[in-house]
Amino acid sequence: MREHNLAVVLAEVIRHQPVTRARLAEITGFTKTTVSNLLTVLAEAGLVRDGGFVHEGERGRPGVAVSIDPNGAAGLGLEINVDYLAACIVDFGRRIRYRHVVASDHRGRAPEAVVEALSRLAREALASAKAQELAVAGAVVALPGLIDREQGLLRRAPNLGWGQVPIRSLLRAGLPALRLAVDEDNEANLAALGELWFGAGRELGDFVHVSGEIGIGAGIVMDGRIFRGAHGFAGELGHIVVERGGAACGCGGRGCLEQSAGQEAILRAAGLEGTKVTSAASADGSLSALLARLEAGDDRARSAVKRAGKALGITLASVVHLLDPDTIVLGGIFSALAPWAKPAVAKVLAKGSGTLRDAMPRLVVSRLAGGAAVLGAAGLVVERVTAEPALLL
Amino acid sequence: MREHNLAVVLAEVIRHQPVTRARLAEITGFTKTTVSNLLTVLAEAGLVRDGGFVHEGERGRPGVAVSIDPNGAAGLGLEINVDYLAACIVDFGRRIRYRHVVASDHRGRAPEAVVEALSRLAREALASAKAQELAVAGAVVALPGLIDREQGLLRRAPNLGWGQVPIRSLLRAGLPALRLAVDEDNEANLAALGELWFGAGRELGDFVHVSGEIGIGAGIVMDGRIFRGAHGFAGELGHIVVERGGAACGCGGRGCLEQSAGQEAILRAAGLEGTKVTSAASADGSLSALLARLEAGDDRARSAVKRAGKALGITLASVVHLLDPDTIVLGGIFSALAPWAKPAVAKVLAKGSGTLRDAMPRLVVSRLAGGAAVLGAAGLVVERVTAEPALLL
Repeated sequence: MREHNLAVVLAEVIRHQPVTRARLAEITGFTKTTVSNLLTVLAEAGLVRDGGFVHEGERGRPGVAVSIDPNGAAGLGLEINVDYLAACIVDFGRRIRYRHVVASDHRGRAPEAVVEALSRLAREALASAKAQELAVAGAVVALPGLIDREQGLLRRAPNLGWGQVPIRSLLRAGLPALRLAVDEDNEANLAALGELWFGAGRELGDFVHVSGEIGIGAGIVMDGRIFRGAHGFAGELGHIVVERGGAACGCGGRGCLEQSAGQEAILRAAGLEGTKVTSAASADGSLSALLARLEAGDDRARSAVKRAGKALGITLASVVHLLDPDTIVLGGIFSALAPWAKPAVAKVLAKGSGTLRDAMPRLVVSRLAGGAAVLGAAGLVVERVTAEPALLL
Repeated sequence: MREHNLAVVLAEVIRHQPVTRARLAEITGFTKTTVSNLLTVLAEAGLVRDGGFVHEGERGRPGVAVSIDPNGAAGLGLEINVDYLAACIVDFGRRIRYRHVVASDHRGRAPEAVVEALSRLAREALASAKAQELAVAGAVVALPGLIDREQGLLRRAPNLGWGQVPIRSLLRAGLPALRLAVDEDNEANLAALGELWFGAGRELGDFVHVSGEIGIGAGIVMDGRIFRGAHGFAGELGHIVVERGGAACGCGGRGCLEQSAGQEAILRAAGLEGTKVTSAASADGSLSALLARLEAGDDRARSAVKRAGKALGITLASVVHLLDPDTIVLGGIFSALAPWAKPAVAKVLAKGSGTLRDAMPRLVVSRLAGGAAVLGAAGLVVERVTAEPALLL
C-alpha cells in the first residue's frame, strides 16, 4: 500500500510541480502528515527535492514547493542495431543529457564482441552521467529482433544472423553496478516509445510507429503503452508478405516487406549496393549517398524509394484495416526519405483502405529519425521508476 | 464512490456465490454494515438475492448466503446480418434462455423495413422473457458494418449496401421500454465476445476470432476486452488485400479477403452461385448444399473451400506478425467448413509466419458457429450491468 501511495504522490508532483505539501494533500486526499512522510521517502530515494516557494490562494505566506529532482533517477538507453551502436542518458525530467552513436557493421560478428563494444559505450555514458552528477537508475537495451524479456534473451535477430543470445547477463557482466537490473526490448517498440516521449507522440494519442532500418518493425501504442501481443512479438511489420513468392527473407519467408522497403533493398534497387552507407541513427551523415542522389533527381534512386513507399503503403493498409490507428508515424530511414517516399505511401494507403472510412489516419514524419529507439530505451527506465518508485528503496 | 462499491460487491458475489455477508466483508475490506447496505441496494435493483445457508469455518451456525438473481438483469441480443435476423435472451447468470434465427435476405432492402422485422423478433423475445419472469435490462444489436457508437449510427455496411442508418432510434421506436438504452456494435466484435463468454473463449486468454459470413471480420480480444481502434473500426479482416488487382469489393477496394473467402465467393467457386443457401447462423441447416457436396467428396466444392482457406491463411499470417495472438478462433461459416478449410489455413499460416517464432498460435474451431454475435450482444448487456450496476438504480 505504501508503495502504491509513493507512486501516487510522485505522479502528482510530476503533474503539478512546483507544488506545496498542502496542495498535494488536497489533490491526493492523503493527510498532510502522510504526504510529508511519503515525500521524505521519495527525497531519500533522490526523486524529489524542495525548491522555491509557491503562492497558493489569495492570502498567507508562500509555501515551500516540491519538485522532482531531475538528476535523481536517470535512464541509460543502449542500442545494438545491424549497422550501429548507440547510447544515451535521459534524466528524470526526460531531458536528453548525453548521446553517442557509432557506426559499425555487426552482420556475422560474434554477439559477445558486439556486446563488449556496447559495454564500452555504456561505460563512457555512465562516466558522463557521473560528471554531470546524474544518478543512473537502470538501463534498457534496444535490439533488432525477437526478445524473451523474462529470460533476458535475444531469441532471433534475422538481420544480424543471431539466435539465443543471453544479452542481459552479457551486459551485466560488462557494466558497473546500476541500481536496477538491465532490461531489454525490441527496437521497434522502443522507437515508438521514443516518439511518444521525445517526438511527435505527445500530441498523437494512439498511433503506429514504423521503424525503418535494415529491418522494419512497428510499435503499436495504445493509451500511452506498447501493445506487445501474447509472446511479446507483436508489430513485426517487416515480415508481412507484400509480394507472394518474392525474394527470400532472413525470417524464412518470401516477399516480406523488408525485401521491398528495408534499407538494403532500397540501396540495391537504387544501384548503391555495397556502398558504405549507415543507418539514419548514425553520426556520420547517414544515408548520405542515397539522399544526395535523390536530391540530384537521380531516376533510379527516386524510383527505388517510390517502390519502397508503395510496398510500405500496401502493408500499412492492412494495419489500418486491422488496428484502425489515429496516426501512423514514419520513423527511421523513412524520416529522411519522406519527401520522396511519403507521397507513394499515402497514395497506396488511401487506395488500399477502400472507401469504408471517412478519413485516413494521419501520416506523420518522425523528427527523431533513427534516434528514437535508444531514447525510448532510456525513457523506459524513467517510466519504470515513475510507476514504481519503491524499486529504488 | 458508492457506485464503485456496488460494482465491487457485485463482482465478489459473482465470483464467490453463494457467499455470506461476513465473508464479503472480509474479501472487500468494507464493514459488515456497508456490505449489508450495498447488498440491499443490489437486491432492490434485482441483481442479488438471499438463498440457502453456507458453513464457513469450523464452528458456529451456518450463515445466510447471497447469490446473484439470474432473472434480475437479462440481456436481449439482436442481430441484423446480410441473410438472417437473430434474437436471443441471456440471463444475468449468462445462461441462454431464448434463441430465434430467421433466414431472410436483406441485400437491397430498405433498412427501415428490416429494422421493423427485427423489432418484431425482439418483441417476441421480450414476450418469452416476460413469460419466464426475466427482467430484461437492455439490448445490443450486432450489425455487419462500421458503427458509430456515439451516434447510434450504422455508417457503412457494404454487403447490405446500406449507409448512414440511424439504427438506434429506429429500434427504440419499435421496442417496448427497456431499462437501458439500446446499444449497437460490429458483429465481428460481438462474435468474439460471444466466443469469450459462451464458447471456447473462457480458456483462451488473448485471441483473434474470425467471423466468417458473407463478410469477414475479426474480433481482437485482449485482457477480456475488445480492441476497437481509434474510431471503432479495428478488425476489418475481410478488406485486407490478398490478391492485388483482384475482384472488386463492396468496400471500393480490389482483391479483398472477402472476395476469396467470403461465403458468396466460396459458393461461386463451388458452382453453387444463386443456390438459396443461408449463413451458418440460420436455423434451417445452414450451408447445407455446400456441406453436402463437401461430404460427398465433390472436387469443385473441396477446391473452392481449400482456396478460401489459403486466402484466409495468408491474411492470418499478417495478423500473427502484427498482433502475436495466443489463439486464433475460426468462427461463423469457417466453423462448419473447418474439416476442409482448416488444414489449408494452418499450412499457409505456418509458411507465411516464417521461422521467427518457436510456436504458431493455436488454431481453434468455434463451437458457436454463426450464433456467436447475437450471444455476444446479449452478454454485453450483462457485462455492462455487472461493471456498472448503478445503471439500473
